[in-house]
Amino acid sequence: MTARFIVLFETPAGPEAFDRHYHDVHIPLARRLPGLRRYTIGRDLVAVRGGFPYYRVAELEWDSMDELHAAFASPEGRAAAADTAHLQKLAPVRSMIFTVDESVL
Amino acid sequence: MTARFIVLFETPAGPEAFDRHYHDVHIPLARRLPGLRRYTIGRDLVAVRGGFPYYRVAELEWDSMDELHAAFASPEGRAAAADTAHLQKLAPVRSMIFTVDESVL
Repeated sequence: MTARFIVLFETPAGPEAFDRHYHDVHIPLARRLPGLRRYTIGRDLVAVRGGFPYYRVAELEWDSMDELHAAFASPEGRAAAADTAHLQKLAPVRSMIFTVDESVL
Repeated sequence: MTARFIVLFETPAGPEAFDRHYHDVHIPLARRLPGLRRYTIGRDLVAVRGGFPYYRVAELEWDSMDELHAAFASPEGRAAAADTAHLQKLAPVRSMIFTVDESVL
């Protein structure tokens, strides 16, 4: 049972400015989150249902919800959150945390 | 570089009926998709930004986009898609496919 944080970005008005800030500033901040086990970013999204796809899907994974909460509360977590508040000015964002059971395969 | 399919469900009007159908009918269909490497379902979602969280986040992963497309085109893929059309009557859904580079850690 792991804990995941997913961040869904709508298409920004200026994709180049968004991408630059995301890669040059945000990823280096987020990579430093304590206990982070996996950090993937989806690109080239194509909608299947429900209209337009998101522009980016970022997923960050921890071994437990306690470790996720500790990472959010850390100085690194506060720095990444402050930067997300900036990113949110470039592209609408919807983010949430959740519990994931083992693969159902 | 892997290929992922994400399915985001809004909160259903009747969560019990949705959960029952999802677990008893949909998961058994989706598990049969050819080449599927990973299939996780997020629960107990808590919003961080952007308002209400989704109700469920299902993620299915393949080794390549070609394998994902082959799975969608297979009889198992068509059966799962038809069942998703039914689930969509129980809860609004937004789904998309995308490319994932290796973990940025």
